[in-house]
Amino acid sequence: MYIKNPMQIENKSMDIIDEVMGDVSFSPEETIVVKRMIHTTGDFEYRKIIDFKENFMEEALKTIKSGATIYTDTRMAYMGINKPALEKANCQLKCFIDDERVFKLSKELQTTRSSCAVDLAVEEGADIFVIGNAPTALFRLLELVDMGKVNPKLIIGVPVGFVGASESKEALRDYKIPQISTIGNKGGSNVAASIVNALLYMVVGR
Amino acid sequence: MYIKNPMQIENKSMDIIDEVMGDVSFSPEETIVVKRMIHTTGDFEYRKIIDFKENFMEEALKTIKSGATIYTDTRMAYMGINKPALEKANCQLKCFIDDERVFKLSKELQTTRSSCAVDLAVEEGADIFVIGNAPTALFRLLELVDMGKVNPKLIIGVPVGFVGASESKEALRDYKIPQISTIGNKGGSNVAASIVNALLYMVVGR
Repeated sequence: MYIKNPMQIENKSMDIIDEVMGDVSFSPEETIVVKRMIHTTGDFEYRKIIDFKENFMEEALKTIKSGATIYTDTRMAYMGINKPALEKANCQLKCFIDDERVFKLSKELQTTRSSCAVDLAVEEGADIFVIGNAPTALFRLLELVDMGKVNPKLIIGVPVGFVGASESKEALRDYKIPQISTIGNKGGSNVAASIVNALLYMVVGR
Repeated sequence: MYIKNPMQIENKSMDIIDEVMGDVSFSPEETIVVKRMIHTTGDFEYRKIIDFKENFMEEALKTIKSGATIYTDTRMAYMGINKPALEKANCQLKCFIDDERVFKLSKELQTTRSSCAVDLAVEEGADIFVIGNAPTALFRLLELVDMGKVNPKLIIGVPVGFVGASESKEALRDYKIPQISTIGNKGGSNVAASIVNALLYMVVGR
C-alpha cells in the first residue's frame, strides 16, 4: 500500500526534508521556500546553493499581497504555478515566449526568444520577473535595468544549464534588487514555479 | 558578452556534458537521452541514476515513428514537450489532470488527481505513459497493468520526491515493459519532457 492523500503526501515530504535542514541557516520564512524547491526537484543539494538577497522574503510577500503582475520566461513555469492560489492572491501571470512578436523579433535579431520576450514584458509591465530557464533572459533583464528601462520589484533568477546560467546568476547577485538565485548550474522552470508557489501559499494558505 | 544563438548554446551545453560522460556506459542512442536530461536539470548526477530497461530505445523510436499517443501526468510535462517536433512526428499528446471528471473522481475516492487521471488515460487509450511527477500515478498505472486493463508500449517513469517516488520506480523496474526510470528521489516534469523531446528529435531532427 502507498499513501494516496495529496496533503498527507506533501506533509510527510516536508517532514523528511526538515531532517536535512539542520546544517544550513535560513530564516523560518526562507526555509519554507527552500523546502519547496527541494520538494520539487527531489534534490537535497538545493539547500546549499540557494541565495536570498536584498530583503527578498519581506519584499516578496509585500509585492504579492499588493496583487502583483508576475512574468515567467517559459510556459512550463507558467503552468507550474498554482492557479487557484494565484487567483486568491489577486495576482496576474504573463508569459510572452510564444507571442507572435517574439518569434518575429528573435529571427530578426538572431537571439533567443527568451531574451526578446523579456523586452516585451518590460514594455507591458511586470512586478516580479521569474526566470527559470534561459540565461539570455536574465542577462537581457539586467541590461534593461542598466538602461533604466525597468526596476523590478523582485527577481526570481534560477536559469539552468552549462552555458551562461551560472554567470547570469552571478551577475544578478551584484544588483541591489530583492532576489533569489541559485549558485551554479542547477535551476529550471519547475524550480522557478516552486518558489512562486511557496510565496503564494504563504500569503493565501495551502 | 554572452552567447545568444539558441542552437550554439545547446551545442556548447552538450559538449560540456560530454566531458563528464566518460565514467558511465550507455549506448550512443541512450547517451543522447541522458545528455538531454542533464541539460534540462543542470545536474550531472543524472548520468548515474538513469536506468533503461527492456529494449527501451528501440521500442521508443519504433513507437514514436508509428505516430504514438503520448500521455503526460502533468501540464508542466505537457507544456515542456516540443510541439513542432511532436507534430512532425505525427504524435498526439494527452493530459487529463485538469479534466472535470478527474476533479470529481479524486474527491470521491480521496486519492490524488494524478492517479484518477491515469484511469482516464487507460480508458481513452495511450501508447506511451509519461509520469514525471506523482508516484501515485505510476503506482496506479502498474495496478492497471496487473489487472490486465492496459499494456503500455513504453513507460517513462521519473516521478520525483520523498514519499513513494523511489518505491514506485523500483516497482516499475520489475515489469517487463520497455521503460526508462531514475533511481532514488530525483525526477520531475521537466525531466519527463526532456526524455520525450530527446526521442522526438532523434526521429524528426532538431
